[in-house]
Amino acid sequence: MQSEQQHLRIPGPTPVPPRVMRAATRPVVNHRGAGFRELYKQVTAQLKGVFQTQGEVMLITGSGTAAMEAAVVNLVSPGEKVLVLVGGKFGERWGQIARAYGAEVIEWHYDWRQGAEPEELARRLAADPDIVAVFATHNESSTGVMNDIEGLSRARELSGQRHRALLIVDSVSALGGAPLPMDAWGVDAVVTGSQKCLMVPPGLSFVALGQAALDRLERVTTGRYYLDLRAYRKAAAAGESPYTPAVTLVFALEEALAMLAEEGLENSFARHRLMRDMVRAGIRALGLPLWTGERWASPTVTAVEGAPGLEVEPFRKLVRERFGVELAGGQGEMKGRVFRIGHMGYAGPFDMIAALAAIEQGLAASGFPVKLGAGIAAAQEVWAQWK
Amino acid sequence: MQSEQQHLRIPGPTPVPPRVMRAATRPVVNHRGAGFRELYKQVTAQLKGVFQTQGEVMLITGSGTAAMEAAVVNLVSPGEKVLVLVGGKFGERWGQIARAYGAEVIEWHYDWRQGAEPEELARRLAADPDIVAVFATHNESSTGVMNDIEGLSRARELSGQRHRALLIVDSVSALGGAPLPMDAWGVDAVVTGSQKCLMVPPGLSFVALGQAALDRLERVTTGRYYLDLRAYRKAAAAGESPYTPAVTLVFALEEALAMLAEEGLENSFARHRLMRDMVRAGIRALGLPLWTGERWASPTVTAVEGAPGLEVEPFRKLVRERFGVELAGGQGEMKGRVFRIGHMGYAGPFDMIAALAAIEQGLAASGFPVKLGAGIAAAQEVWAQWK
Repeated sequence: MQSEQQHLRIPGPTPVPPRVMRAATRPVVNHRGAGFRELYKQVTAQLKGVFQTQGEVMLITGSGTAAMEAAVVNLVSPGEKVLVLVGGKFGERWGQIARAYGAEVIEWHYDWRQGAEPEELARRLAADPDIVAVFATHNESSTGVMNDIEGLSRARELSGQRHRALLIVDSVSALGGAPLPMDAWGVDAVVTGSQKCLMVPPGLSFVALGQAALDRLERVTTGRYYLDLRAYRKAAAAGESPYTPAVTLVFALEEALAMLAEEGLENSFARHRLMRDMVRAGIRALGLPLWTGERWASPTVTAVEGAPGLEVEPFRKLVRERFGVELAGGQGEMKGRVFRIGHMGYAGPFDMIAALAAIEQGLAASGFPVKLGAGIAAAQEVWAQWK
Repeated sequence: MQSEQQHLRIPGPTPVPPRVMRAATRPVVNHRGAGFRELYKQVTAQLKGVFQTQGEVMLITGSGTAAMEAAVVNLVSPGEKVLVLVGGKFGERWGQIARAYGAEVIEWHYDWRQGAEPEELARRLAADPDIVAVFATHNESSTGVMNDIEGLSRARELSGQRHRALLIVDSVSALGGAPLPMDAWGVDAVVTGSQKCLMVPPGLSFVALGQAALDRLERVTTGRYYLDLRAYRKAAAAGESPYTPAVTLVFALEEALAMLAEEGLENSFARHRLMRDMVRAGIRALGLPLWTGERWASPTVTAVEGAPGLEVEPFRKLVRERFGVELAGGQGEMKGRVFRIGHMGYAGPFDMIAALAAIEQGLAASGFPVKLGAGIAAAQEVWAQWK
């Protein structure tokens, strides 16, 4: 189908609202001029609201992985012991980065269909006082599983005395779409990217640091330069970035943050939950298995398993080519086993109806037994009962 | 002056052509989909033409400094000895990055009004066979001095037998606007950014590697992840980036490379030389001292010294606020001593006339004795005689 209308139903990059895209076409300016400095300070202050922190937010020109690396190289010294929670591809990435920079990495592999149990974290921490940091994934976009970050943070207090480990969280595919009140939950560092719930094209990423993390910055000995957050902190005090930032994407960010403020963070969270519930009801009505249960279901992306009589990759291709709806495949060892439906950022209930329509018709065209409209009707029921 | 017309006469970021900006507003797509893979392969191949290399070009989402760091961490192991040519702020940056990653750094500080003399490099290399890499700046944008990269590369051969050191060149503020035929000159690695002569908004940077550099990639032991070029190389073979790239800036890059191809690389070089010669003739006619002489004059940026009766920073402010022409100040220790006129990327002779008009009127308004039109007339003479 030839259409410029986007049905990009992958867990990022996500569709960019027209007004955000228009903002990105403003003429490039001197990134060290007074006008841009004002803008830089403003978006940094607004981002603190999204991270819900009184700490500091640093803006990096780079992919989400750059922000993850910034968290590692600024908060862990070579030889220090860290615990990495691995429940999918992005949990693995924390481990890869920490190892690349010489940390002693302990990986805790939990069931990829579930989140990490806080009680188990408490046990592991109690047994190992040397751990200086716990790396977790808020929303594992490879599986559609959302961790209980509040519980994991509190697990550091279960052993009577608070464990010294920092909690460092990848919320690349959730921040802005799901609650992560950093200070209230006692999370020490959170990273995210521009191209997911924040509705900005890819190219910017963010690191938010609480006081304990800011204190560690100065003591960590890992070699670093482009991602040395000390330089970002110093430059930010003057409203600048240490190196030329992606100026047009900062313009886009300003507009996207205005949209998020107009909607309200809580309303954005509710919209994402509604999309999740509509998609899950629809998929269930179509008889396809959901990868994870209710407890851990992500509000931003849903993984669906293949079924007898349905080959996932040819089905995805058909849905993309015939209906213009782009679903994501499985990553790594999950390739061919699941497809994923992104429902984050600039999307709403009608987009879920459209996605379910394409899925239903794609299933029918693939020879999978399906009653057209059944998934949509189930999703509508959810929407109708939404308060 | 209220105007959306840009007179951004700084050495980057530079004005973005409207058609490039329009390209950046195309809907965001799946960066792992077939369409984007094709585009990614195409721009990578075109970039090889701009770098004039048969080697490989890697595209990084990040500032120019990210590409510089990628060159360091992928080509030098901790403890290895490197020679850094320092003739300005960006030469200093090579040294800072190399030290941050544990290299043994020897800095050669040459006169900031001149380039590095190839004969002197030959002497230094002959005296030190342990140097594994020479880091140089093609165009030092802090001073408007352009190095003789061809001569510096050949200097490795003067001692009878070729010195083993790689030559690694920062051409962030020159590639596309001044000749740097990498393979013909025997340069091993070149880095550049999107926001200078390539006419794209900031946010992308590039590393081009010849065979000797590619061979070193696998042997270097420096810890690295986001900037590990082995991952970029592997992903590029499939037309992908290892991490989510700045998709909209890649769309912009496609359009900008098309513009550069339409003009022709040699014509772009000639246009930049013309702008340089017009600016220098105009400044000379106004009686202001040029920072560097003819031999080393950069085709992309010109530094002008203050003079008795002219304070640089208030003058810059006046020119910006009254005429909307943004000149750059001096960086670091050169702040207040020079102003800089950027003439790179999407700019031509009329832009130089406009810049000189603003400079003349700004000088007059600052009480500096100037004959209005004298600088412009001198620039026109250059243009008129241009063949």
